[in-house]
Parts: sequence; C-alpha cells; structure tokens
Amino acid sequence: MAKLMTLLWGAGSPPCWRVMITLEEKKLQGYKHKLLSFEKGEHKSQEVLEINPRGQLPAFKYGNIILNESLATCLYLENQFKSQGIQLIPDSPENHAVMYQRMMEGLTLTDKLNSVIYYDQSVPEEEIHDSAVKRNKEALTTELKLWEGYLHNVAAGSYLAGSFSLADVIVFPNVAYAFRFGLSVGCYPKLAKYYSLLKNRPSIKATWPPHWVASRNGYDILKDL
Amino acid sequence: MAKLMTLLWGAGSPPCWRVMITLEEKKLQGYKHKLLSFEKGEHKSQEVLEINPRGQLPAFKYGNIILNESLATCLYLENQFKSQGIQLIPDSPENHAVMYQRMMEGLTLTDKLNSVIYYDQSVPEEEIHDSAVKRNKEALTTELKLWEGYLHNVAAGSYLAGSFSLADVIVFPNVAYAFRFGLSVGCYPKLAKYYSLLKNRPSIKATWPPHWVASRNGYDILKDL
Repeated sequence: MAKLMTLLWGAGSPPCWRVMITLEEKKLQGYKHKLLSFEKGEHKSQEVLEINPRGQLPAFKYGNIILNESLATCLYLENQFKSQGIQLIPDSPENHAVMYQRMMEGLTLTDKLNSVIYYDQSVPEEEIHDSAVKRNKEALTTELKLWEGYLHNVAAGSYLAGSFSLADVIVFPNVAYAFRFGLSVGCYPKLAKYYSLLKNRPSIKATWPPHWVASRNGYDILKDL
Repeated sequence: MAKLMTLLWGAGSPPCWRVMITLEEKKLQGYKHKLLSFEKGEHKSQEVLEINPRGQLPAFKYGNIILNESLATCLYLENQFKSQGIQLIPDSPENHAVMYQRMMEGLTLTDKLNSVIYYDQSVPEEEIHDSAVKRNKEALTTELKLWEGYLHNVAAGSYLAGSFSLADVIVFPNVAYAFRFGLSVGCYPKLAKYYSLLKNRPSIKATWPPHWVASRNGYDILKDL
C-alpha cells in the first residue's frame, strides 16, 4: 500500500509532520516522499499545484486519491487502515469525544502560533502595527494557558485523550514548534512535560524536522509569553 | 439519547448550523437547545463559559461529554450513531477521502468569508486598511472560484462527495451565508445550483436561521466578487 503513496512536504511544518507521524504509526513506511523548500517557493511549483491547487504542503497522493489537508489525511489513513499499526481513534465514547475536540482545537493553536511567529511575513510592511503584535501575543498566551489547563486535567500528565491518539498527532507538532520558538519551560510546565513525554516516541523521532537536528538552536520569539 | 443533549447556539452561525443539521440527519430531534444573542454578548455568559471556556457557540453537552468545535461534534455524532438516520461518512475509499478533504477545506472557506464580512469588527479602527480589505476580497474570490471548480467536477452537479455527507453538512452553511451576503448567482452558477439543490433538504429547512425567515433580505457586501 505504502508504495502507492507520495508525500510532498516541507521541513518543520506542523501540517506535514502530522501526516508523517500518522504514516509511521500506521506502519506505512516505504511511501515515496520529497522534501521541498518553502524559502525557495517550491510549494508553489507545478509539481505541487498538480496535486494541491492551493499551492500548500503537505500534498499527498495515494493512487488516484488526493488528500492535502493534514487532518483529512490523518483521519482517512486511520479509517482506511484501522487494524494496521496503532489504533489512533479511541473506542470509549468519552475519549472519542475528547479526541475530536482537541484535534480540532489544535487548528486554533496552529493559527495563533502562526499569527505571532509569522506576523511580519503575513502582512505588508505598511500594515504592521505594534498594537496587533501585542494583541496576537496576548491571544497566544491565553491559548497556551488553555492547553496548560487541559494537560493539568488529563490523568497522570499523559496523552490528550486517554492513550496516544490523533489528538496528539495533530497537537504535538504545534507544541514542539512553540518550544523551538522559545516558549518557556518554566512558565508552561505541563506543556513541557507533555513535550518531553512525546518527543522520544519512535514515530515522532523518526519524523523529527531534519534542520532541527542539524541545528539544535531555535528562536526566542515566544520567550516572553 | 437526544434528551441528554443540550445545544447552546447562535442564529446564522455556520458552526452552530452544522451541528443542528447533523442532529436532524441522525434523527436526534428532541434535544434541549437555547438560542443566544451574539449582539448581546450572550456567547460570553457564564452559562456558555461553563461548557466552552472559549466563550464561543456552539456549546454542546451530551451527558458528561462536552463538544464545542462544530466539526468535532459532527464527527462524533456520526460515529456514535452510525446506524441511526442518514449515513454521513461514505464507504467507498474515493468518496471517503473527498469527504474529509472538502470538510476540512470548508474551514478555510469560513475563514475567508469572515475576513471579508467581519473585517471591520475584527480589527480596531486605527488598524483598518483599504489594502487589506482589497486583499481579503481577492483571496475570497480565489477561494469561491476553487469551490465553483470542485462543483463543476462532481457528477451531475450534486453533492460534494457522492451522496449527502458531512462535507455538505460543513460546507453548505458557508454557501448559504455567501448568498445571504450578496454573492452573485450569475457569477457562481455551480455554487448557486448547489445552494438550490440543498436548501430544501428537510434537515436544512428545519434548521434554517430564524431571522433569515423573518427577513428575506440579506446584505450586499459580497455582490462585487
């Protein structure tokens, strides 16, 4: 099956990382993949546009089937390969509900991280306002505290919805990203513990962004949150 | 089952409407519900915050289970009540994939509609730029043309993923919203046909925003797109 799959991806992109973690967990190693450079604009290349008209990564193909939204891809792979690898959607109604809820909230976390980390790149120079920078940082702080609270409530500081699930697949890359960009371990101890617990999971280690391995130093843009 | 469910909702909100359509399709009529006013700020009331710490609608409770993200709620209800009412996740791998893909892309359509319709309310007056208004309108036009193309390709101008599915549940309220806010039927004939096809579906008629019935006149903010 995996041989019929092709993934075009960008390093460090949480949406791409989610798909790669899912492929590992579902024992779908051996898929074709190609690392493209956002800096060089390769996500807008013809090769990507043929799969994803939005010119975004991931762009994923499995035979004639095309899936470009990371959550859609993860949900599809789990549902089509239910009995292969780790089960990523929990059975109990309670965990089932929490999993979908956190998975979808993970997109808000992504948006709020991007609104701080990439603010300067997302609007033209003449539209940049210090007041917007401040507001976006405050909104991200509120968001991160919400997640700190969610993790406070889960049993034994472990996964988001009982056992490891799609909620973790979707949310973990954001958390890793936040720490890479300088989030304080001291101010967010539950998120830091969650990060430590998951970062050595085989599927996550195997898909760790290559340039994060090459350079252990991150950025400090989130250090004051 | 439905008697154990409570939905706090706001009229005309696509996320709330999605949950209501799903409850109808899954034959879960009889749930408790309460219409709250965004204008009066009732989505920030204690009653909502107890269910949804984000102070957003929908806020949905089913016994001890809480689901506040519309897609999470729809996915959960479909999976927990699979054999009840209409099946909203298609079986065939092709339609299964398209359903998840369009469902997730529906969130981008929501964002781009909001960025035009609610731009003035989303940023303080001193941060309003005509250039941003123009850019947001262009981005929405590109987005709407993408959907016009998706509908051009589906068989017989019908549903987004074979038969009626969660993709339609998620996307239709956005399409209805776009026409309510003045989108041109002539410029987007496929979207207009899709709108006509679905607007009389019983689950959609039963949940039509009450103030849209009271006042048939919409707005013209999208008329030039």
